[in-house]
Amino acid sequence: MPTAARNLVSIDDLSLAEMRGLFHWARKFSGDLRAWSDTCRGLISASLFYEPSTRTRLSFESAMLRLGGGVLTAAEMASSSATKGESLADTVRVVGGGYADLIVLRHASEGAARLASMYAPVPVVNAGDGSHEHPTQTLCDLYTLWIERGRIEGVNVVLSGDLRYSRTVHSFVCALARFGANIVLVPHPGFELPPYVLQRLREEFGVEPVRADASRLGDLAKESDVAYLTPQKPHQLSLFTDTKGLRVDRVDALYMTRPQTERYRDDEAAARYVQLGREEMSVESLRDAVVMHPLPRRDEISSDIDSDPRSIYFKQSARGVPIRMALLAFLLGRIDLGVEADVVESRLYEVQVGDNPCPNPTCISRTEARHVTPTFKLAARMPVRAHCGYCSQEIPASFVGCSTSRNFHEPDSSAIRKIRPDHLVFFQDEVQARALGFERATRAQRSTTTP
Amino acid sequence: MPTAARNLVSIDDLSLAEMRGLFHWARKFSGDLRAWSDTCRGLISASLFYEPSTRTRLSFESAMLRLGGGVLTAAEMASSSATKGESLADTVRVVGGGYADLIVLRHASEGAARLASMYAPVPVVNAGDGSHEHPTQTLCDLYTLWIERGRIEGVNVVLSGDLRYSRTVHSFVCALARFGANIVLVPHPGFELPPYVLQRLREEFGVEPVRADASRLGDLAKESDVAYLTPQKPHQLSLFTDTKGLRVDRVDALYMTRPQTERYRDDEAAARYVQLGREEMSVESLRDAVVMHPLPRRDEISSDIDSDPRSIYFKQSARGVPIRMALLAFLLGRIDLGVEADVVESRLYEVQVGDNPCPNPTCISRTEARHVTPTFKLAARMPVRAHCGYCSQEIPASFVGCSTSRNFHEPDSSAIRKIRPDHLVFFQDEVQARALGFERATRAQRSTTTP
Amino acid sequence: MPTAARNLVSIDDLSLAEMRGLFHWARKFSGDLRAWSDTCRGLISASLFYEPSTRTRLSFESAMLRLGGGVLTAAEMASSSATKGESLADTVRVVGGGYADLIVLRHASEGAARLASMYAPVPVVNAGDGSHEHPTQTLCDLYTLWIERGRIEGVNVVLSGDLRYSRTVHSFVCALARFGANIVLVPHPGFELPPYVLQRLREEFGVEPVRADASRLGDLAKESDVAYLTPQKPHQLSLFTDTKGLRVDRVDALYMTRPQTERYRDDEAAARYVQLGREEMSVESLRDAVVMHPLPRRDEISSDIDSDPRSIYFKQSARGVPIRMALLAFLLGRIDLGVEADVVESRLYEVQVGDNPCPNPTCISRTEARHVTPTFKLAARMPVRAHCGYCSQEIPASFVGCSTSRNFHEPDSSAIRKIRPDHLVFFQDEVQARALGFERATRAQRSTTTP
Repeated sequence: MPTAARNLVSIDDLSLAEMRGLFHWARKFSGDLRAWSDTCRGLISASLFYEPSTRTRLSFESAMLRLGGGVLTAAEMASSSATKGESLADTVRVVGGGYADLIVLRHASEGAARLASMYAPVPVVNAGDGSHEHPTQTLCDLYTLWIERGRIEGVNVVLSGDLRYSRTVHSFVCALARFGANIVLVPHPGFELPPYVLQRLREEFGVEPVRADASRLGDLAKESDVAYLTPQKPHQLSLFTDTKGLRVDRVDALYMTRPQTERYRDDEAAARYVQLGREEMSVESLRDAVVMHPLPRRDEISSDIDSDPRSIYFKQSARGVPIRMALLAFLLGRIDLGVEADVVESRLYEVQVGDNPCPNPTCISRTEARHVTPTFKLAARMPVRAHCGYCSQEIPASFVGCSTSRNFHEPDSSAIRKIRPDHLVFFQDEVQARALGFERATRAQRSTTTP
Repeated sequence: MPTAARNLVSIDDLSLAEMRGLFHWARKFSGDLRAWSDTCRGLISASLFYEPSTRTRLSFESAMLRLGGGVLTAAEMASSSATKGESLADTVRVVGGGYADLIVLRHASEGAARLASMYAPVPVVNAGDGSHEHPTQTLCDLYTLWIERGRIEGVNVVLSGDLRYSRTVHSFVCALARFGANIVLVPHPGFELPPYVLQRLREEFGVEPVRADASRLGDLAKESDVAYLTPQKPHQLSLFTDTKGLRVDRVDALYMTRPQTERYRDDEAAARYVQLGREEMSVESLRDAVVMHPLPRRDEISSDIDSDPRSIYFKQSARGVPIRMALLAFLLGRIDLGVEADVVESRLYEVQVGDNPCPNPTCISRTEARHVTPTFKLAARMPVRAHCGYCSQEIPASFVGCSTSRNFHEPDSSAIRKIRPDHLVFFQDEVQARALGFERATRAQRSTTTP
Repeated sequence: MPTAARNLVSIDDLSLAEMRGLFHWARKFSGDLRAWSDTCRGLISASLFYEPSTRTRLSFESAMLRLGGGVLTAAEMASSSATKGESLADTVRVVGGGYADLIVLRHASEGAARLASMYAPVPVVNAGDGSHEHPTQTLCDLYTLWIERGRIEGVNVVLSGDLRYSRTVHSFVCALARFGANIVLVPHPGFELPPYVLQRLREEFGVEPVRADASRLGDLAKESDVAYLTPQKPHQLSLFTDTKGLRVDRVDALYMTRPQTERYRDDEAAARYVQLGREEMSVESLRDAVVMHPLPRRDEISSDIDSDPRSIYFKQSARGVPIRMALLAFLLGRIDLGVEADVVESRLYEVQVGDNPCPNPTCISRTEARHVTPTFKLAARMPVRAHCGYCSQEIPASFVGCSTSRNFHEPDSSAIRKIRPDHLVFFQDEVQARALGFERATRAQRSTTTP
């Protein structure tokens, strides 16, 4: 029972024009944060935090209070016995039914915000769902870049540190590609951007990574295999690979990420993690670069450079308030972005046959299996590829069937094109397909000869 | 030191006329929940929750915010060391002294809200005291019935599921009887309404349970001993016991309760717990019945019927906000119900002699024994019966004495009538009476002859 | 990077004139607490509580709500994983950067509020830093005395109970001395005021304790060595030591403290702790004395005297709201005290050489050693004595050096006078000094002859 309310589950739920509209409002709000206390008077947001995240919660609550709205706080939904085994779908129907006019949800399971948005009668904002999405952080990062550089298109952004496990970076890099920024990847060795993110960058935004010459980046890149991504084709690789190398004034923003220390097998690797200090910032290429960080930082940015005017991470954090003010006021219908809604959400199809095909054990479709109808969305039709409708992980499929004909095919069979999307069934292997009463398609005779 | 402020410790603290006045205000508020933010401007409610109950807390806090008031939250009073061994009486005197204008109290000990109401300089609302009372849930249930059916008098309400351990049902059934509703009990086998509730229904509201023909209720009642209670005398049992049986259009509301799963000795009993789904709802008798549930539900209501227009449990939950708005605004003196206060609270008497006679180990008079003066109220004079002034449990008394004459009597002795209520002393047995220096009354010579 | 914003880290941060200004505003606010909801409209305070203290938190939050401001609450910063190892300096920069306009900080480490005030871009109010300071409790106590007696100068205040471990009493007694009150110390035996507090009273306010005749204080003082402190010289000891003894009408206020039961080695000592009841209050000297207590109380004040008009501890607690309203409105620039700021904060010097010399293991400079620059302030120049710039504990120094000359001296050497304060280095012993490359000063030849 999807609702008509606009939500922010993924940064993809907003069009570029809408984001630019939010940036303009955020800048207006930041002129005097204290002057907008009539904007959402009489309205209430509820912070439903199934895992604690004080910083994110306070930023949302500050935004709502600055708009003159009220705030309901449930900071520890999971640890309290308050839920009494209630499903998330029921909880958001209750809280969204009269209690609050908007729900800010933080949850440990990927896809939780998507599920909530399907049941809540009010807008749902994803404040982090497991390792999946944290769209308002991305919105804040984009807004900061837009404020600092006046635009995002064509801006050169260096992403440094742990690019593998940082949810923040995955959302940010896709959004940068969507806006047409140039992206330089300087990963901590062994912590490169995962293949599925690169695949998405290639498929959706047409960008390809190319090895880059990072000699002008100094110690920042000394151990890394630096890659460069640009949305234009042909790639403007001359910027990096011509004999003159990377120009001194080329880095507009340096985005640092913290080491996910719990991921390191040995302390040695952590010890070699990049530490940005006065020396690293002294290279010519970073002369005009602003230094960004989603915070909290640990040692990857030395307090030596806190007073450096290029260090804007505390400003970036502070901008989380006006950009969230803009988002909340927009979702609550109190401001107009002046643009038509033009984002088409991926259509979700219910899984018709067999068990939940999502392979992710912490997906909400698994952690609340009793209450959730598994869904999928189509990522590609030839060969057919599908993602879980909640957590977006790819559904592994050795064979694909049709729920009406009860035939199954190999994923690259042209016969699949004729199957209606809502009739698609995904099988891990032939045994599973046959156990569910499916037969190999007769036109695929070549396969049936296998013993 | 009782205070003059009106409180809501028990649903009995409100007269029928006052409740109807609250219903009218709640309906007015629900026209646009966002339009009342000046009603309690400048006022503050404090949520003192000694055990977590996020749903109840958020409902109260939403109501206060919608009225334009402020909210102080202490969501985990018990687990925090904040109280530093302070008595509840002191805590509510502090919080009610300038911090807040009204206290919403949730506590694990029965009678806690009564105690708080005796010391707080501001109104106290009971948001649940152990297994004792949860009056605003009852108010919300009655309001929902009133909205859905236009009245409560004469409405046919089926109560189904665990009627034994559900605090909610105990309060609701008494309030229904008080309003003159017809009540059909369809308990899960082994989980019938407890005798003391039936006794109260009989003594206070003159209703008697009679076995009913529930053949028209379908699977809902297949295993249950269905009983029918009606406030009118003679009982309108013809409705159920005549040969035509229960009329198809007779059930106005079906109130489901969840299984208190921790109470079941075996999983089998829990597995047979009623599950309301499409099939159960298809019987003719339920054609116009609204389905109510205090939530959270587990499996006793299938999500199959969530979109059935008769399923109003989420609406019921949402109505918790306007009815609590009405209650808070009333207790804070910001709205007028247009009726005279006509409820006489049971008078409480201090226990003069001996230990606290309350038999309930989780009563606030026992859990805070150092700080609480035991009290009792009289339930009946012949034979004399008394209840704990806090938790309402009956005080076991084999003998009853007079604190001035130091004589004691059997509970049905006519001599007791002459004892002033505040001089009554309750003894578990003769040994206890004699140990406290009491003598058997001389006029009861027939008893003294026993060896 | 100190900021210009006014803070309240220590009661010493306010001048006497400013405190009197706050008292006048608090009295004005208390006329009708509900009438000031426009004073701080649009502003937000954040409660950052690294240890729970519900009472203190609610008092601050009530004050902010009464002023019409918004409140952000982080009630359990320490137990949540929310901080993710972030330094306190970073946290207050984030929260003070757009989220909130003022920070109320509670922390287990002494000096935490001082550190926070050095980094936060908004005012910081200390709501308790370990066993160090809790200035708003002191402000509330002084305000209560001012309201009850019309003045503080010359008022006779008895401090009774545990004067050794009570942080509250240490701040209060110094503030009383500063205001020129007469102080009578009636400690529980073994729990006398610590020497360093007496030293401060002597050095900063010129008061000396003298044994007093407490025969008129009845059982309250039966076991105690009563001392009398008065700011005037010569001491007005005649009040207590003349043959007529303590005059009946002389005690204006009796300030009780609770036993810090965790400090008692045996239950016997706790059992003998003073219990103030009807009998104790019946002595003539207390006829007009108001009874104060910072609450929560345990058994040191019997509930027998709760209804005694002299028992004002609940009124005292209630006054925490208007005095905190005055403080918040002042720090947020929304009211004018009509006085010039005339408090000179002690200058802090960074430790230039060697490790952090602070001896307090729970000082914020030790618990967050990675993020904190050790500092000291000078308490005296001859002999030189220094205190930790955070927790105020005295730095133990057997020798004192100069960071430029690399010489060291004994603390009472006249040569120290010529060293610039920011060049001072404190050594625990000679070994430490030499290990850091310092040489004994050549002019102190007599010392070098020791083998």
